Amino acid sequence: MQCAKILMSTLRCTLSARLSGCDSSCTPFKKTLLSFNSKVQNSFVFDTGSSLLGSAKSDLPGAAPPRTKAIAHPMFPNRYLIAGKELPQFIPWVQENFDIDISKPPKIPPEPTSFPQSRLPNDIRQELEQIAPMSIDGMDRLIRAHGQTLREMAKLRSNSFERIPDAVIWPYTHDQVEQIVHLACRHRFVLIPFGGGTSVSGATMCPPGETRPIVAVDTSEMNSILWIDKEQLLARVQAGIVGQDLEREMRARGFTVGHEPDSFEFSTLGGWVATRASGMKKNTYGNIEDLVVQSKTVTARGVIERSCRVPRLSCGPDWEHVVMGSEGCLGIVTEATLKIRPLPPVVRYGSLVFPDWDSGFYFEKEVARKRLQPSSIRLMDNEQFRFGLALRTKTSWGGVLLDGLKHMYITKIKGFVPEKLCVVTLLMEGTAEEVTDKEKKLNEIASKYGGVPAGATNGERGYTLTFVIAYIRDLALEFDIVAESFETSVPWDRTLALCRNVKQKLREECARHGISHYLVSCRLTQTYDAGCCIYFYFGFNSSGCKDPVAVFEEIEEAAREEIIVCGGSISHHHGVGKLRKKWYTDTVSEPGKQLLLAAKEALDPDNIFALGNMAFEEGSHSSADVRSKL
Amino acid sequence: MQCAKILMSTLRCTLSARLSGCDSSCTPFKKTLLSFNSKVQNSFVFDTGSSLLGSAKSDLPGAAPPRTKAIAHPMFPNRYLIAGKELPQFIPWVQENFDIDISKPPKIPPEPTSFPQSRLPNDIRQELEQIAPMSIDGMDRLIRAHGQTLREMAKLRSNSFERIPDAVIWPYTHDQVEQIVHLACRHRFVLIPFGGGTSVSGATMCPPGETRPIVAVDTSEMNSILWIDKEQLLARVQAGIVGQDLEREMRARGFTVGHEPDSFEFSTLGGWVATRASGMKKNTYGNIEDLVVQSKTVTARGVIERSCRVPRLSCGPDWEHVVMGSEGCLGIVTEATLKIRPLPPVVRYGSLVFPDWDSGFYFEKEVARKRLQPSSIRLMDNEQFRFGLALRTKTSWGGVLLDGLKHMYITKIKGFVPEKLCVVTLLMEGTAEEVTDKEKKLNEIASKYGGVPAGATNGERGYTLTFVIAYIRDLALEFDIVAESFETSVPWDRTLALCRNVKQKLREECARHGISHYLVSCRLTQTYDAGCCIYFYFGFNSSGCKDPVAVFEEIEEAAREEIIVCGGSISHHHGVGKLRKKWYTDTVSEPGKQLLLAAKEALDPDNIFALGNMAFEEGSHSSADVRSKL
Repeated sequence: MQCAKILMSTLRCTLSARLSGCDSSCTPFKKTLLSFNSKVQNSFVFDTGSSLLGSAKSDLPGAAPPRTKAIAHPMFPNRYLIAGKELPQFIPWVQENFDIDISKPPKIPPEPTSFPQSRLPNDIRQELEQIAPMSIDGMDRLIRAHGQTLREMAKLRSNSFERIPDAVIWPYTHDQVEQIVHLACRHRFVLIPFGGGTSVSGATMCPPGETRPIVAVDTSEMNSILWIDKEQLLARVQAGIVGQDLEREMRARGFTVGHEPDSFEFSTLGGWVATRASGMKKNTYGNIEDLVVQSKTVTARGVIERSCRVPRLSCGPDWEHVVMGSEGCLGIVTEATLKIRPLPPVVRYGSLVFPDWDSGFYFEKEVARKRLQPSSIRLMDNEQFRFGLALRTKTSWGGVLLDGLKHMYITKIKGFVPEKLCVVTLLMEGTAEEVTDKEKKLNEIASKYGGVPAGATNGERGYTLTFVIAYIRDLALEFDIVAESFETSVPWDRTLALCRNVKQKLREECARHGISHYLVSCRLTQTYDAGCCIYFYFGFNSSGCKDPVAVFEEIEEAAREEIIVCGGSISHHHGVGKLRKKWYTDTVSEPGKQLLLAAKEALDPDNIFALGNMAFEEGSHSSADVRSKL
Repeated sequence: MQCAKILMSTLRCTLSARLSGCDSSCTPFKKTLLSFNSKVQNSFVFDTGSSLLGSAKSDLPGAAPPRTKAIAHPMFPNRYLIAGKELPQFIPWVQENFDIDISKPPKIPPEPTSFPQSRLPNDIRQELEQIAPMSIDGMDRLIRAHGQTLREMAKLRSNSFERIPDAVIWPYTHDQVEQIVHLACRHRFVLIPFGGGTSVSGATMCPPGETRPIVAVDTSEMNSILWIDKEQLLARVQAGIVGQDLEREMRARGFTVGHEPDSFEFSTLGGWVATRASGMKKNTYGNIEDLVVQSKTVTARGVIERSCRVPRLSCGPDWEHVVMGSEGCLGIVTEATLKIRPLPPVVRYGSLVFPDWDSGFYFEKEVARKRLQPSSIRLMDNEQFRFGLALRTKTSWGGVLLDGLKHMYITKIKGFVPEKLCVVTLLMEGTAEEVTDKEKKLNEIASKYGGVPAGATNGERGYTLTFVIAYIRDLALEFDIVAESFETSVPWDRTLALCRNVKQKLREECARHGISHYLVSCRLTQTYDAGCCIYFYFGFNSSGCKDPVAVFEEIEEAAREEIIVCGGSISHHHGVGKLRKKWYTDTVSEPGKQLLLAAKEALDPDNIFALGNMAFEEGSHSSADVRSKL
């Protein structure tokens, strides 16, 4: 029990430090921070960034990476409700689900001290230095070598990347990006656009076989809001701005962009465009393709940007829709004009408990059919609901719900079975009248399916749960639990079967691999006229595995095959990257693939943007030897 | 006065016959019908078409063109409110605005009797006949040689097309289209997809320099609704279905697609996709890109179609958005899965009178900012309002408005100047409660800008006016009036200046060309978050012109240049075609053009789809001689 206490204390302290977003003197924190990843590093080290009339300059000159000031998060000073709180149910939940040996200390890897030597020739380095701050420091390069897949996390922890960028450069402006791309074309080195580093498709990983020098173009200094047009509800924004920074600046002025992907704390506008991001509040604000009015992208063959800032156009194929989803392989997005909206006068969370998944699903479907979706409406399955319970403090999420009178009402009077019930979380925005009206209508529909209102606090906790999960995933690695989420979009009529079959497939795969302790869970996160997005969460105790990542990927691949058989897509908003290349051509059809290759040949014939995502080959381009003055 | 009476009678009779959609024994009708165009011919001769489980077969075998049964329009038996009615104000209005000599008889061209000889080699013809019904009849070919631009109308009237298709083929199925495309690839002849023939960009015109045989692929027999999924609100539809047929079939089943472009009586689903169509009710149902869930297109390099019918996807660039707007140059759209909606319980028209254009504009802008647009909300300028008045019968549009008490209220009490006032027409759909609520909110906003409600009848007449205008334009040609509409999309902050400057430019151009009688008018037809669509109507008495079409085009080009200078686009939904090629590259930027050329090279390297729209060259492809067995 002593060990359990220590572990709990460690967990609590670590979570607290990470989730409150400010520095901490807690010992395990510093250790894990360093062995962690750029995501967390970014979390604690960021510049206030967004200014209205110019990019924020870093205080540090020369080659030092910007974004190095540790300050409290200005938007959410305690940005998660559970931050700093004791979570008495968490350890029991972890033990029950994953059977981890809590007597063992967490596996905290040592801070990397050796890095592959930079292959950047000196002459190119000197030319790059003339353009913008840059670095060939090993840690700087390592941080920009990866996104957030399990494989990347494992490689980061073991410091075993086959290939990392040879340099990092931080342009401040579109013009500097143009200069960098010109230089890359002249010398034929490789450029990798790097935003928040939150990719979960392997898209930012350097192809191991790439023999040319690789320069990561970190867009984090291109973080300015260039102008806001309050009359027309538009903002011109540099593509490196981070979601939370953009939102904070907008809110300070009475507006919102409203784009809130789960990665919103770290991911950037450019990344949203390049991967076709979707936000949790897309029902009100739209997905990225609905938000972008105009975008500007530097390709190896010039700048692609429409000449007019119009709301809609019929001028042949829409090339913005080719830039969107280009995953860093066609160029670097530098700026975009985004829609903004006045801040809603009222923001109200809500939640509804349903007896089971099917009831919640049919509720979601009817709400979508009637186009009554509030800004966010999500359905958690029972496993996820119980995971939420595990994160409850004495009076928090689930605590309110399942304690006392409410618990009695739901289980005794309504007859819900705690092991079956599911929860819908709601986020409603608008005037007081609109929000009240919306809530009334949703409650009416819910009651048809046996749904019971469960309060605003549970709704808010459910809504923010997603942010927390990513942290816990990384932390869990230290205790041999490997976990990842993957998503799909699916037509309404295939959804129930898909969820059932994919969960079953995951369980079968676990059995096949001799995995006895695992978590399989899903969530319905977005709804549309024609279907929805389903997020799966899957993790297992890998302490008995020789190669946990390989096993995980094998199981995930089997689950993905099942998703496809059930009519789901390879991705709703994460993209293809390297992880889902296998299914790209089948998804878009052979002529679609040919269009991709043709676009590449037209815009980047020397394969400067050599990430090798989607249908592109990884590794050096045959005709692309480095042209160095050396 | 005798002449005036005859002319009026002729006009009335012609209009009546044309607008009621049924045959007529009126003498001038038959003459003008034959010299007219496929648009009107289609109007009178169409098959009921759409069946649920297979394409409707034409009664006529072999080479005869389908859609030959003259039947009354089943959806709108008297589909325009003014059909069959006397229009006592029309002649005075025409005389005042255009000063036409009504003593002269209308210039009704003779029915064409000679046609360019078909260049289709016999062996190809025989092979095509094995696939689907086809024809090399001159009239069949002439009808598929053009869209609806002024130039095309003039060429049709003078039977002076440099190049018309050498054959027409009517496939019934996707598979037949694949066979036709294979054959074209094998023999290297040219295919021109032909839907409703309503293009106003010159997109369907044969390039005069094309030396290879040209076969028009008339999609009108691909007019089946393959399935309807009432649960998921989807329908799979063949791309040749005409808007009104699709809508009639859907309505009979309690649903609607809700896509109503002005051309909706004749234009087809495939045409909507190929040009990026926009409907009048897009606020509720979306533009074509919002309606299409999945599309299927036959290219020379295979069929492009996504493998999954999902509501949203992140799988690289969206190739659907390249098919959309491809303007017949990349392949033939054969099928699409469309969203459908349950028929709204209540449909209510409405209208609002504003003291002037600016007031109406600011009303539209505020409604858009608040996202309160009903299904359709359009603002007519004073000239268009008065044109509407000219079409009034004794108790119709404008009659109600400006006669009696209402006239007094608006002009005397409200102080509106009849030569300045503007009208907003509304189409509201939803439950009774929603419609009432919407109307109340719109009226509240309108009152801030001096707007006064003017009733449902005026709203409906205003809404349907657009359909009538196209007929009148064609009729006007017989009296030397040349006229056309052109549209643009524009940011909110540029709209007022754009409307003012473009009108001024048109007036200046008229003065420069010595044109004294003309009409310049505009309408705000669609609103978005970031701007709106403006439609210009421009026509003049060309009786003094040597080459009216050339003068018109010169003036329209000057107006378009002004539009662009003012921040407008080259097209909101008409597309580029051949008419706006000049501005294509500037609009999409040089890399955008390169993407277009690359897409062509990837999907159609032999230029089978040789329409020459957008950035493509017109005329024969160098490497593409016909491979005939002869």
